[in-house]
Amino acid sequence: MSKALAWWEGLSAASTAVRFVDRVLRGIGQVMFQDHPLSGLLFFIAIGWGSWAGGVPQVAIGGLVAVVAGTLTAQWLRVDAAGLNAGLYGFNAYLTGIALPTFMASTPQLWVYVVLGGALSVVVMLALVNVFKTWGVSVLTAPFVLITWLLLLGTNAFAGLEGSALPPAGVIVPIDPAAADPLRPVDFLQGLLTSISQVFLKGHGPAALLLLAGLAVSSLPAALFALLGAVVGLITAHALGAESQLISAGLLGFNPVLTAIALGAVFYRPSFRVVVYTLLATVLSVIVQGAMITAMTPFGIPTLTASFVLVTWLFLLPALKFE
Amino acid sequence: MSKALAWWEGLSAASTAVRFVDRVLRGIGQVMFQDHPLSGLLFFIAIGWGSWAGGVPQVAIGGLVAVVAGTLTAQWLRVDAAGLNAGLYGFNAYLTGIALPTFMASTPQLWVYVVLGGALSVVVMLALVNVFKTWGVSVLTAPFVLITWLLLLGTNAFAGLEGSALPPAGVIVPIDPAAADPLRPVDFLQGLLTSISQVFLKGHGPAALLLLAGLAVSSLPAALFALLGAVVGLITAHALGAESQLISAGLLGFNPVLTAIALGAVFYRPSFRVVVYTLLATVLSVIVQGAMITAMTPFGIPTLTASFVLVTWLFLLPALKFE
Amino acid sequence: MSKALAWWEGLSAASTAVRFVDRVLRGIGQVMFQDHPLSGLLFFIAIGWGSWAGGVPQVAIGGLVAVVAGTLTAQWLRVDAAGLNAGLYGFNAYLTGIALPTFMASTPQLWVYVVLGGALSVVVMLALVNVFKTWGVSVLTAPFVLITWLLLLGTNAFAGLEGSALPPAGVIVPIDPAAADPLRPVDFLQGLLTSISQVFLKGHGPAALLLLAGLAVSSLPAALFALLGAVVGLITAHALGAESQLISAGLLGFNPVLTAIALGAVFYRPSFRVVVYTLLATVLSVIVQGAMITAMTPFGIPTLTASFVLVTWLFLLPALKFE
Repeated sequence: MSKALAWWEGLSAASTAVRFVDRVLRGIGQVMFQDHPLSGLLFFIAIGWGSWAGGVPQVAIGGLVAVVAGTLTAQWLRVDAAGLNAGLYGFNAYLTGIALPTFMASTPQLWVYVVLGGALSVVVMLALVNVFKTWGVSVLTAPFVLITWLLLLGTNAFAGLEGSALPPAGVIVPIDPAAADPLRPVDFLQGLLTSISQVFLKGHGPAALLLLAGLAVSSLPAALFALLGAVVGLITAHALGAESQLISAGLLGFNPVLTAIALGAVFYRPSFRVVVYTLLATVLSVIVQGAMITAMTPFGIPTLTASFVLVTWLFLLPALKFE
Repeated sequence: MSKALAWWEGLSAASTAVRFVDRVLRGIGQVMFQDHPLSGLLFFIAIGWGSWAGGVPQVAIGGLVAVVAGTLTAQWLRVDAAGLNAGLYGFNAYLTGIALPTFMASTPQLWVYVVLGGALSVVVMLALVNVFKTWGVSVLTAPFVLITWLLLLGTNAFAGLEGSALPPAGVIVPIDPAAADPLRPVDFLQGLLTSISQVFLKGHGPAALLLLAGLAVSSLPAALFALLGAVVGLITAHALGAESQLISAGLLGFNPVLTAIALGAVFYRPSFRVVVYTLLATVLSVIVQGAMITAMTPFGIPTLTASFVLVTWLFLLPALKFE
Repeated sequence: MSKALAWWEGLSAASTAVRFVDRVLRGIGQVMFQDHPLSGLLFFIAIGWGSWAGGVPQVAIGGLVAVVAGTLTAQWLRVDAAGLNAGLYGFNAYLTGIALPTFMASTPQLWVYVVLGGALSVVVMLALVNVFKTWGVSVLTAPFVLITWLLLLGTNAFAGLEGSALPPAGVIVPIDPAAADPLRPVDFLQGLLTSISQVFLKGHGPAALLLLAGLAVSSLPAALFALLGAVVGLITAHALGAESQLISAGLLGFNPVLTAIALGAVFYRPSFRVVVYTLLATVLSVIVQGAMITAMTPFGIPTLTASFVLVTWLFLLPALKFE
């Protein structure tokens, strides 16, 4: 594996075109924190498969268009080469590019929006990086959340932009207890996989397995914490009495997955105390996802990864030393 | 008094158990900025009395459970000893612990929530302290407001968590002018006391007197500015035509009380110009409380001390020198 | 021109009264970034004319009262002389002073509110300047937006304050495509002018011409970028299918105007790449204005210049070097 990677890196250094492909792939890989072209490739295939199977190929295409637009924008803005080569200017663009076609009707204006979203995500990334470096904390997927919220909210004001799959705006109503059925084991297993694939806004089992493979080729701990996050997320959501349908669709699980990877395998060095700290954050990310679904109800927009971003910031900002 | 305090501090230095009790008491005292165990004890008794009289003993118990959970969490996270001994990791936990049983039904899950809330308030405290030290400004009760808002919003998504006493979410409707009756003098006096006790989410006259005593044993100016804040809050609210019931219940007065103590007696050294500045902030905190009640209506959550936090930040951040 | 200016500056240096008038005029000029007393005078006349013609003279008077209150407050707080003399403590007060009478009924309490708003805008300005200097970014009109939002939200809670011209709070409904008519050329021209005058909350053609003149006497590039912003705003809004009435009233155009001036003529040195960057931001400011109108619907308050502030921050914070 490391030999193949060395060969690829040699190619990238020699050819501008290969370098560009490498940046795009690493950009996709960074959605789950992996600076590795093969992770990106596997993630890309996973989302392509999931989109195709779901009858929405425009989602996978949107992601590709946006990450290309974002990478070109980053190059035009002459951002730092290290960050560019590590894919740091691609992952927010990619997520924006899969989110817009997920929630909007496939009109010509959608594609203007996807290109614009990819380009803007880079500007917002640069802006937030400058703010958060004050405290030495990563911006995570905050640029994606912010720009996608604004673009989706904006669809209400323009007839050419149709947010046809957005949740309807309305008054908050607490959950009907009858919706919290006992989960069958098969729903549990399905929820485990969809929790992972929903990181990329897809509820698709085989895609989840490819995503896990993509994590494992780059970082085994990341794959393990992804699984741990999914399990903890499922148990917490079920124990608190969440809607069974949300659980099995993975909609309460993708934030815990990202939170567990970030705290357990990326920003802290694993140890007993770090694992306990990560578990606390993972549990919180489930509750905050419930809070976010509630808080977004009057606005009629999805929560995206806001819960992961908020909780992970709160657990990174203390800048604790766990040694 | 100072002899008794010296004796107590000797005990605390000698015994881990007494030190822990001291941290808990100072944590309660810090709700009103008092680093003094007797203030904390008097506040604790006041809230116990108010909760008992109101038929909700779980509120006082919740506060105690959360402040213990928070202090233990702070110790486990090895926070700075000076802050820990001054109770700085306790007051947000205590407030979270009295707020959750105030707005939620008394189920077993509530107590999981209370422990979790106490622990999380420490993480959020550490996070916000790191952010706000950039500008040399205290985080005040922002950790309590943030974590309690998230936990209460989350109740809508989980059948096991019942926000049974939360305000209903709905569409904003301006006040009916008929609700702004002339206040009788007895309502005025009641509003004065409840404005002080509502700092701890209680409308209870005798508790307010105990709270004032708790302030006075540690800082006479703090007690005086608390009274001043209550009076200014009452007059402003009434002059602008607020709902009489809100005024006499103290619900427009606790933010001015905290704002007046913070600016007049804690963060600036009293002088004529500081008093004028404090009065301006105190008046604003009444209006912002009205704004916050409005802004929270679509979300169905209480404002807590958000108005105090926001206004006091706005008046501390200029970093003015008043000498 | 420069001779007349030198004479006026001599007068200002010699007389406290003239200096005060100079600070007030420059404060008004800074609404569109112009540190020039003649710009301020022309802006002041423009708003006076527009208010008189619209039958709401209290709007122009409110602006004057608030900018005087704000300038006096700044002097009392002993802010830095350079900022004071450049009008930096006046523009947020002026905008607050024209916004409150625009959205509220003309009662005696309104005038208390106007004075308070002018004074508070200075405190909020000092607070935000301290925060944003961390990243070397201007606070723009954020103090105006924040304090005016709070004061307008507060009207719902007090019978003495009537937000009689506020948009009604309600549930978000996407635009009816029928409302996006084809624009007639005359509507287009009208929209061009009202986009500029709406920077001061007025839809009035002659006022817009005076505002352009006020820009040109101080900075020709600023006048050109204002026009560019208006044109780009109109085209973007129309191409995306915005409501025709909003376009011709200038309500989707004032944020692009301010964004174009700020990025094109104030904070970056014009070049081809800066113009492209500015165009991207200007287009975004139209979409974000649509998003803001949506997001404010549950709260029943106007968006003010929030879209300009947010987008310009996002495009300034990257701290790009365009040389």
